[in-house]
Amino acid sequence: MAPDHFGDRLTTAIRSVGTPLCMGIDPHLSLMPTLFGDVGETASSSTIRAIEDFSMACLEMAKGRVAAIKPQAAFFEAQGPDGMHVLARLGRAAIDAGILVIMDAKRNDIGSTNAAYAAAWIGHDAAFPSDALTVNAYLGLDTLDPLLARADQQGAGLFVLTRTSNPGAGDLQDLKVDGKPLFQHLAAGLAPLAAAREGELGLSSLGIVAGATWPDEARALRQTLPGAPFLVPGFGAQGAGAAQALAGLTVGPEGPEGGLVNSTRGLIFPAAAREAGTIDAWRTAIGDAIEAGRTALGTS
Amino acid sequence: MAPDHFGDRLTTAIRSVGTPLCMGIDPHLSLMPTLFGDVGETASSSTIRAIEDFSMACLEMAKGRVAAIKPQAAFFEAQGPDGMHVLARLGRAAIDAGILVIMDAKRNDIGSTNAAYAAAWIGHDAAFPSDALTVNAYLGLDTLDPLLARADQQGAGLFVLTRTSNPGAGDLQDLKVDGKPLFQHLAAGLAPLAAAREGELGLSSLGIVAGATWPDEARALRQTLPGAPFLVPGFGAQGAGAAQALAGLTVGPEGPEGGLVNSTRGLIFPAAAREAGTIDAWRTAIGDAIEAGRTALGTS
Repeated sequence: MAPDHFGDRLTTAIRSVGTPLCMGIDPHLSLMPTLFGDVGETASSSTIRAIEDFSMACLEMAKGRVAAIKPQAAFFEAQGPDGMHVLARLGRAAIDAGILVIMDAKRNDIGSTNAAYAAAWIGHDAAFPSDALTVNAYLGLDTLDPLLARADQQGAGLFVLTRTSNPGAGDLQDLKVDGKPLFQHLAAGLAPLAAAREGELGLSSLGIVAGATWPDEARALRQTLPGAPFLVPGFGAQGAGAAQALAGLTVGPEGPEGGLVNSTRGLIFPAAAREAGTIDAWRTAIGDAIEAGRTALGTS
Repeated sequence: MAPDHFGDRLTTAIRSVGTPLCMGIDPHLSLMPTLFGDVGETASSSTIRAIEDFSMACLEMAKGRVAAIKPQAAFFEAQGPDGMHVLARLGRAAIDAGILVIMDAKRNDIGSTNAAYAAAWIGHDAAFPSDALTVNAYLGLDTLDPLLARADQQGAGLFVLTRTSNPGAGDLQDLKVDGKPLFQHLAAGLAPLAAAREGELGLSSLGIVAGATWPDEARALRQTLPGAPFLVPGFGAQGAGAAQALAGLTVGPEGPEGGLVNSTRGLIFPAAAREAGTIDAWRTAIGDAIEAGRTALGTS
């Protein structure tokens, strides 16, 4: 049975956990504590085991403390097919634990090929199980059709890259078309698709990526997409503070909602955790980092 | 030891085989001949084996007949991690056979994450071994830096999605910025990066994707990017004829060069091959389809 509507589930998760904070899980070999084992050779059994132990330990810490996890596919792919096995198991474990999984894989292709990506990445039944997927729409809005069809059928969501958090985001995204930046044209194209997918709690299953480093753009995007969930990267290590990160979110009965504020390095690679000598010390450091993130976002 | 410059290797391959034709390898379950086995359940051992046998048989037919193969990552990902194992083995087998491998994975992320995608996908030493990778630059030109660094170090190439072959390609790509379509702004941004990477035979290791369905756009792009290899999808099944497909290529001493014209369905799923009752009949049908493609492109 397909789970309920993604937007509703996202709002429920945020209200239940008390924060829109999302934990990025990027097993960056050079940042992983030695506590999780040797991460020397690419795709070696010890590296794969370390990545799995680390990712699953992060998931354990995420439970009940953040609204979702966001594994970054690139770091699993860099370890080849065995790394992809870890990603699939991580997605499954999170879903079994009732935590939302945003697969950050930024997939994109023409329509007939996107149907294959949809089967791979969207929904609890996917090869890489998820609740939502990040996608790129540069190829055109028609390419979203098979992704939306699969998401609708699976009770899953999509986050379309609209305004990203990197320094060069504006190279294309800010180019002016009829006086408006390109990303606003994309958002306008997404608006009817998002409006048609609003759940009972008002949030759509079609959202966008809107980087925390560009709060003015996020506020403008919220005008265009009042009911879309915003996935907000760039909070913390990439330089954006809480006020910036929350700029595009909405205010719910119990605090900020309407999207997810992702933090990766701040939550899974804080200095105290990297220096931890025992798993208990590591857990304490990660717990403290999550608590600091929650507090910064003004949530209890 | 890293292989030689990608642009030089591409030109040499085209001249040696006598055609810019590229074979797309998309193991589309609903189109695969039953000859290769049962392709029922996703990621079942029989499905994985059928995909591997089919892909490797296509590679065998490609040898000496086309300039490159272009596996489509989505169809392997749809079969989960075991499907990704097949993709890795296909890339390795092609490289061992001396056939260029264009991994069509359209990866993209911000810089620090793209370094992980680069390790996964670019070069003979990658987790998914390749000679070149397709990438998406909507996130900004800065995101190409780690991809270019890895490609330069590995003697590999990149094809940046610029003007795609799908009907909705123009939704974003054609939007007018200062009187010019967006895709031309992207091309102009790529021009110095491509010019700095031209090999001894004049072709760069940095190229673009320019769909066969848009020949006028391809000709305009060739003005902007005189030395860039063009990867041209959309020939055949997607509706473009040979003249359209060749619009953006250049004329070399022995025929069209300066890029690759990809055909997938026309080469690996011709009607005669799908109905073949024996592997020999299948081989004959694929051989005929490749010969028809070569002839259509005006090559011997």
